[in-house]
Amino acid sequence: MSRIVLATRNAGKIAELHRILDGFEVVGLGEYPDAPEVPETESTFAGNALLKARAIAAHTGLPAVADDSGLCVDALNGMPGVLSARWSGRLGDATGDKDRANLDLVLDQLADVAPDRRGAHFACAAALVLPDGTERVVEGRMHGRLVDAPRGTGGFGYDPIFVPEGETRTAAELAPQEKDAISHRGKAFRALAEIIDGLLTGGRA
Amino acid sequence: MSRIVLATRNAGKIAELHRILDGFEVVGLGEYPDAPEVPETESTFAGNALLKARAIAAHTGLPAVADDSGLCVDALNGMPGVLSARWSGRLGDATGDKDRANLDLVLDQLADVAPDRRGAHFACAAALVLPDGTERVVEGRMHGRLVDAPRGTGGFGYDPIFVPEGETRTAAELAPQEKDAISHRGKAFRALAEIIDGLLTGGRA
Repeated sequence: MSRIVLATRNAGKIAELHRILDGFEVVGLGEYPDAPEVPETESTFAGNALLKARAIAAHTGLPAVADDSGLCVDALNGMPGVLSARWSGRLGDATGDKDRANLDLVLDQLADVAPDRRGAHFACAAALVLPDGTERVVEGRMHGRLVDAPRGTGGFGYDPIFVPEGETRTAAELAPQEKDAISHRGKAFRALAEIIDGLLTGGRA
Repeated sequence: MSRIVLATRNAGKIAELHRILDGFEVVGLGEYPDAPEVPETESTFAGNALLKARAIAAHTGLPAVADDSGLCVDALNGMPGVLSARWSGRLGDATGDKDRANLDLVLDQLADVAPDRRGAHFACAAALVLPDGTERVVEGRMHGRLVDAPRGTGGFGYDPIFVPEGETRTAAELAPQEKDAISHRGKAFRALAEIIDGLLTGGRA
């Protein structure tokens, strides 16, 4: 079975990606404590995913998968976007719950925005880089809208304030398998899984 | 001399606008303590300026001038924009220095952004609404870039982190008259002053 390194230390992401990429031996960066920290300096999700996958493939000599994802809020011109994880900056660091500080900040910023202008989508770029230099990147989206106050304890990040299209529950109120089926990351990683299968096993599946 | 009401309680803005609109008897909302608070719910500076000027013209029966302005950061897709004054939300309220919390948050959000991607501009929409329903709105911009750390004690808002094109000093290091000559608000209010002069005095100036 092919070993693939997932270029993340985020426990929530690792759990999600394990469920989706279950036909491979997937390991996280916990097994590579010396792996480099890669600053996400690009202005696009795809750019950042490729940056990370390249660095981890070079470090491990193994096929590396990385994603970059975030929440794109219509009334914020698509931000927080690539800055989703650090939207509240040091103010959020000081609160001890960065996810909560980030989503509270988005709610504050939208406080005076009309209900019909609360559209948003999650976006995910998933990149694969092989030691021979082969690169692939795919993107997935989940459209929906933001609610006024967080609900639910599942998921992570902005899930508690995001209701997917066709749902009344927030993404944090969905079961993990329900979320995977419609999520930006689920879509991107299923598309990447097909590519991985073709490249690494010659289309055995 | 025609009396005009400036629809703002912001001391920094009042000082700036007094200097520019010096051919008229300009009064701020301090003289109209019962004037309505107008939520800035529009998605554009022009929309918010008109909202405020309409409300104050209706309340006072006098020509009303209002502006809405903000900082538009390239790497934030033009945000904070119309949300400039409340960018840090309740996290900023808790710090006791909202201006500082707002600019610190922008600096944090740009922490990993490359030096050549720190472009930004200030934008200002200035609106005039007369009691007879006549409406005018003009816009001004000041282009420049953001520095890494605040400098200077003049101005207000994001001035300490913004260096105008052709300058090495931040907007907070410029003398008030220097800033007026190049600022978004200066440009917008000089353009509006000409319109006011034409409408209210028949082009006497």
